[in-house]
Order: sequence, then structure tokens, then C-alpha cells
Amino acid sequence: MTNDADRHASKMAKKKAARDKIMATKTDKKGLVIVHTGKGKGKSSAAFGMIFRCIAHGMQCAVVQFIKGGMKTGERDLIERHFSDICAFHTMGEGFTWETQDRDRDIEMARAAWEKSKELIRDPANSMVLLDEINIALRYDYIPIDEVVTFLTDEKPEMTHVVLTGRNAKDELIEIADLVTEMELVKHPFRSGIKAQIGVEY
Amino acid sequence: MTNDADRHASKMAKKKAARDKIMATKTDKKGLVIVHTGKGKGKSSAAFGMIFRCIAHGMQCAVVQFIKGGMKTGERDLIERHFSDICAFHTMGEGFTWETQDRDRDIEMARAAWEKSKELIRDPANSMVLLDEINIALRYDYIPIDEVVTFLTDEKPEMTHVVLTGRNAKDELIEIADLVTEMELVKHPFRSGIKAQIGVEY
Repeated sequence: MTNDADRHASKMAKKKAARDKIMATKTDKKGLVIVHTGKGKGKSSAAFGMIFRCIAHGMQCAVVQFIKGGMKTGERDLIERHFSDICAFHTMGEGFTWETQDRDRDIEMARAAWEKSKELIRDPANSMVLLDEINIALRYDYIPIDEVVTFLTDEKPEMTHVVLTGRNAKDELIEIADLVTEMELVKHPFRSGIKAQIGVEY
Repeated sequence: MTNDADRHASKMAKKKAARDKIMATKTDKKGLVIVHTGKGKGKSSAAFGMIFRCIAHGMQCAVVQFIKGGMKTGERDLIERHFSDICAFHTMGEGFTWETQDRDRDIEMARAAWEKSKELIRDPANSMVLLDEINIALRYDYIPIDEVVTFLTDEKPEMTHVVLTGRNAKDELIEIADLVTEMELVKHPFRSGIKAQIGVEY
């Protein structure tokens, strides 16, 4: 080995020791409230990535789509085709609010999706429940934020992970969440006239 | 309908018209260079979410893991068990640099991973190639950034999507990318003593 390589090995050994020491203090396990928000891409994709991890580990899980029902997604097809025995999939919304143009109907749909979500979260057989795009329903007050916060705080089984996605997550939700990631848009191809593409966007 | 509902419907109809008009200008399709970076979570999960979308649509794709080889991930299991006919999976790294503590070996591994990546990207049968955690190898200059940028600019087939993940993406890469998302950490449960958990982190 060169001197450079020696120095690298010694630096990395120190880094590993420091990291191992920190990691040794992280011993608790608990069901997390996870929020993906921000204007960037990847909020739902990353949530589905976690759902696929659960499926891979044989952990029962469930998905409720609050808004994107109007869009046919690859994830839904894949889960319904291959993993419906381990992951329940409920599409309750009919599309974005500017597609439906009917507020009463949107509220009714959001309400039904939330009732289904509570039922799935209460079932201790589910290790993870994904509430996809619920933040949009919360933002328009189709579901009162207080009701969701109270439910997650008081009724969520201790070991169950709940993932909530969508732009403009409410402060009350961020306040009670364990893990919050904001996806920030740095560059987007729509700006140069590229349309939504199969495999990338849906 | 109430007046409120009428106002909502009219507002949303306008929003939809504006949106449809904008979307009509987005007509081009092309293979994108996509970067997921930042300190937050979800960089790899969102990338795997896109890989699962491709799989769902029957599009051939491939994954090269540059660094995380030491960690057994759920995604790899799931893809190798169910979808190996449509998605090739290559794990070339042996863990993080502070685990291996051997710079020469890390460089050799990164080099091999990059050679495999080029081969997979050149194959026009692949619609999407994910280079997972390549940014770590680029950051430590295990692979020269100029070589990667030149390859993606000059040799990537026009319709192939290439997804590059990892913290600290180099400016030269962001410069040539079509779609860049920065995952920002807002809140992390490690801070309150919670360890990495199955289904969430791996």
C-alpha cells in the first residue's frame, strides 16, 4: 500500500469507529409517521419503494390512493398482479381536483379514503400503510387535519409505520411526524418541452 | 350545488384549461438523465420506485449498485426473486468507504461497476439504467466525473433513461442532467434514538 492508502485506511477506520459508537445508541424500534413533501419529484416513488421493501421482507402492508385515482400507475398494476396477497391496494380518489371540478364529490371521496385508511392502520397485521397524496386532501380541508393528527397520535398501533405523501404538508402533521423529507425541485424536463413519460412519471 | 361548490367548479375548470394548454406544449419524448441527491432520505427508494414502474410496464431495465453492496436490500431480493428476466441487478460495491477502509480496493470496485454500467447503458434493449450511489464514488474521485459526463452526453442512446443517486452530486453532473431532485432532511428519527428498521431503511 502507498502512504496515501495508509492514510485513507486510518482515516476511514476512525470514521467507522465514530459511526459504530453513534449507531450503538440507536436501539429503539417503533412505528414511524413518515412524511414526503415538497415540490420535487419522488414523493410517491420513494413511498412505493418502502412498500416494495415491506413486500420483499414478507411484511403485510397497504396503500390508499387519495387523489391519483384518475391516473393509472405502474405501481398499482404491479402490486395487484403479483402481491395482492400481502399488500392491499385501494384507489379512492378520481383524479386531481382540477380534473373532477366537483368539490362535494371530492370531499365525499376523501372522506371514504380516510375511513378506509383508519381501518387499515387499526389492523395490527399491517406493518406499513401508505396514504398516497393525502396532503392534497388535507390542504383543501377535505379532511380536517386535527382529526388525522389525533388519530395518528392516539390510535395508531405502536409498531405500525404510516407514510403520508403530497405537496404542502400541513405544519401540524410535520410537528408529530418522526421522519420528514422535502423533495426539492432543482431541474425539471417539463421546462424544456418534455412530456410525462412511461416508466418515469407513471 | 351550493354557490361555494359552483365557485369551486368554475375555478377548477379554469385551472384545468390552463394546465391542459401548458401540457399540450410538452410533446417531446427523450431519455432523461435523472439525479437524486441531498442529505434526505428517499434518493434510492424513489429510483427503485421508477425501476418498479418500468418492470410494471414490461420495459427492460437494469440496476448497478456502486456502494451499498455490503447491505442486503429488500429491493434486490424482490427483483432477483420475481423480475430477474426483465431487470438485471449487479451489486459491485462492498459497503460504504468507512466499512472497507481500503482505498485501492474501493477504486477497483467502482471502476468495475462503471464498466458494467457503460455496457448496460449502451445496450438499447434497456429503457432505464439505475446507477445507485454512484455519486459517492464520484465524490471520492474513484471514477473521474469528466468520463461519466462525456459518456452520458455522447454515448447514451437517445431514448434511454439513466438515474444516478447519492449525496453530494457533482456540479458537472447536475449541469448535464434533465431532472434533478434534492431530498432534504427535515426531521430524522435517528435523532431520537431510533435505529434503522426493516421495511423503512432496507
